[in-house]
Amino acid sequence: MYSKEILDFFKKKGISIGDRVSISSRDMALEGEIMPKTEAGDRATIVIKLDSGYNTGIKFSEDMDIEKLASGKAEVSFPKAKVTQKKGLPKVTLIYTGGTIGSKVDYKSGGVYTLTKPEELLYEVPELSNIANIEIVPLFSIFSEDMSYLEWQKIAEKVAESLNSGSNGVVVTIGTDTMHYAASALSFMLPNLNAPVAVTGAQRSSDRGSSDAFMNLTCAVAAAARSDIAEVFVCMHASSSDDRCALIRGTRARKMHTSRRDAFKSINDTPIAFVDRAHKITYNNNYKRAGASDKKTDAKTSFEERVALVKIHPNSNPEIMEFYSSKGYKGIILEGTGLGHVAATTQHRQFNWLQHIRNATDKGIVVGMTSQCINGRVHSSVYSTARELSDAGVIYCDDMLPETAYVKLCWLLGNHRREEAARLLNRDLVGEMKKRSGYEEFEEDEYAGESAGK
Amino acid sequence: MYSKEILDFFKKKGISIGDRVSISSRDMALEGEIMPKTEAGDRATIVIKLDSGYNTGIKFSEDMDIEKLASGKAEVSFPKAKVTQKKGLPKVTLIYTGGTIGSKVDYKSGGVYTLTKPEELLYEVPELSNIANIEIVPLFSIFSEDMSYLEWQKIAEKVAESLNSGSNGVVVTIGTDTMHYAASALSFMLPNLNAPVAVTGAQRSSDRGSSDAFMNLTCAVAAAARSDIAEVFVCMHASSSDDRCALIRGTRARKMHTSRRDAFKSINDTPIAFVDRAHKITYNNNYKRAGASDKKTDAKTSFEERVALVKIHPNSNPEIMEFYSSKGYKGIILEGTGLGHVAATTQHRQFNWLQHIRNATDKGIVVGMTSQCINGRVHSSVYSTARELSDAGVIYCDDMLPETAYVKLCWLLGNHRREEAARLLNRDLVGEMKKRSGYEEFEEDEYAGESAGK
Repeated sequence: MYSKEILDFFKKKGISIGDRVSISSRDMALEGEIMPKTEAGDRATIVIKLDSGYNTGIKFSEDMDIEKLASGKAEVSFPKAKVTQKKGLPKVTLIYTGGTIGSKVDYKSGGVYTLTKPEELLYEVPELSNIANIEIVPLFSIFSEDMSYLEWQKIAEKVAESLNSGSNGVVVTIGTDTMHYAASALSFMLPNLNAPVAVTGAQRSSDRGSSDAFMNLTCAVAAAARSDIAEVFVCMHASSSDDRCALIRGTRARKMHTSRRDAFKSINDTPIAFVDRAHKITYNNNYKRAGASDKKTDAKTSFEERVALVKIHPNSNPEIMEFYSSKGYKGIILEGTGLGHVAATTQHRQFNWLQHIRNATDKGIVVGMTSQCINGRVHSSVYSTARELSDAGVIYCDDMLPETAYVKLCWLLGNHRREEAARLLNRDLVGEMKKRSGYEEFEEDEYAGESAGK
Repeated sequence: MYSKEILDFFKKKGISIGDRVSISSRDMALEGEIMPKTEAGDRATIVIKLDSGYNTGIKFSEDMDIEKLASGKAEVSFPKAKVTQKKGLPKVTLIYTGGTIGSKVDYKSGGVYTLTKPEELLYEVPELSNIANIEIVPLFSIFSEDMSYLEWQKIAEKVAESLNSGSNGVVVTIGTDTMHYAASALSFMLPNLNAPVAVTGAQRSSDRGSSDAFMNLTCAVAAAARSDIAEVFVCMHASSSDDRCALIRGTRARKMHTSRRDAFKSINDTPIAFVDRAHKITYNNNYKRAGASDKKTDAKTSFEERVALVKIHPNSNPEIMEFYSSKGYKGIILEGTGLGHVAATTQHRQFNWLQHIRNATDKGIVVGMTSQCINGRVHSSVYSTARELSDAGVIYCDDMLPETAYVKLCWLLGNHRREEAARLLNRDLVGEMKKRSGYEEFEEDEYAGESAGK
């Protein structure tokens, strides 16, 4: 609730909650709708819903200028249409886990809330019922930054269960913050997948004019219903216009922008396919195809939680290796510089990583090397530091994303003995890396400019 | 030296060091020139210089196939031309620190060596002497992954000294691995700069056909001699073709590819300018202009080394905050997810960061928040976790790069009291961040597609 002081101020100005107002003070000027507040917290803040769709809080002061521009809208209500099942359509399971795609700004409660009835998503996109018969499975409703592997395990089990009970494909909605980590985890946890699993979400909530929620969801359902991609992929806007979504292999996706609708990029490989507004799927890359099979889909969800992802930087403290070692960690993925380097012979000896890394590998910790450049590939034989690291047992992860290498190592150590996990870390399992035969990785145009961080 | 075994094998096959050969075994097949070896190390490895210009080591085995394709070249020698001073040309100081731009593959010593006589760089680019009178200052010769702030301090002091003794501009050559960290450090360490400082290097050494060394160096010298940009900027290839270099503000540059010549991108802002093959400078963005001034250039090089850059990821261990706290750290920059988030209410309580971050700020550690998305900006008021972090004293760093925020915080804590450092962290000092007035940062097309991770 707002403080009495603020409510009195509103009254004096003839303003009600929900009204569109302009507010200005020395520092700022903005327009938007006054949101109600139910949460506890800073009672001296006025919450304004901006035209961008985001809420923002303004510190209240008696001398701020506020002017009513228009009266508030009535409460938003959702049509309660029934979703009907149509004969002959593929069956798609939609696993709902929360995130912005299921978020709305509620005029009654204030702030972003996640749907308690995920069916509401369907009511707003009636065309979905022409693509597939959709079964909604609300697993939980959390923001993705709060997801750990415990949720990934539940999602993987639910995907397998859905496919084993007759679904033709699965859509998983997840918040975008850690969507790529989750998509990567599902890729490894579902090793014998024989149907499409589309991971989707939204950068902007569904009550915003610029929301990407509906198109992402529609394209994801179309891909799950109609494609023969037997892989986990992220389905998100391919560009900032509403023209098509990209289907990006789960292990190759990375969120490359905080707010753009086309934030997800396919790194070091092109997207598997694109889905346009007419739900037409255009294939663009190799992929694992679904085939006739009676085999049950397995969910291999064991996961070692004591694995770290460590970014190397100038002046960085290598004692972090001993910190993780003392905590019983089994694996560490390094984000090295350039082709996969660390400081090895700095003038400032305390910054030299080599011996600390050797201490870790000597203790049996699996250490993998990736590049913080994100695009490109690490290489263990060009410069002497990398050769020394390699000799110390560091496993160079080719063109694998650091985030993917991290998830992969957790999964490997959960499912294999140490030696086997180390061996598999730089073997391609589900399209997460390309090993070029020979030594041609430095060709002039190795880089897929279409898809990566150009 | 090669082992006797290998030398005997070469002899048997009629092969001399320097010869072009094809080698094949079960696992690989490649062509290249046999390099001599002087270094100690694995004596059972044959070093081959590939056509890509990189060296690679092949484990020797008696049953490998090796075939001589052509005889070796004579020793490479450098012309010992004198660099003459021309009247009326601007004076540019070239500070040489090592890295690939000064590396060559030497047929006598084997492996990549860095030039002992950096003048050799000039002999190979005679056109430089038509652009400026160049004074070469060899500071040291190291790979950039081995640079710490101790080297950055020496470079900054040498830049100031050069400008204070009559140079019109300065070029600094650095290895590319940590070039962007160094450029950022120089940007803060030279706060009252009144002349161009171009930081350049090469992704491929100068004896490779595809080397970017000469064009990068020429464009950097042109920018240092002729531009009025009173800032530190990175001068590297703007595209994969040899058409122009981009001048990227030091605090906005990031190495975004392990091997491409156009690896450096300007993040969240467009490059300041471009320099084409004819050395024509086309300005592209606002910048600080050099003006008439008698003021000495200051080098403010104090630097707090106890600052960490920590990447948040699902299942990441927040006890790292206590690790750094126990080591006496004064500052921590977090690379959060999305708009600047951490796990706050996970089911798996040990992964919740909030209290650990509060513990750090309570102890007076300055904690800053950036995004691992790289592109875009963090925002402290959209979601509740960010509001809580903000309430805990975490400073949201707008659209600043994580690497830049890290360097900036080290520099601030080296030069200011804690409170002032915290206050300045999200104030723009040298173009490292943009604060939009009002709340318009989520506009549809805020993103400079030309320059960032598209």
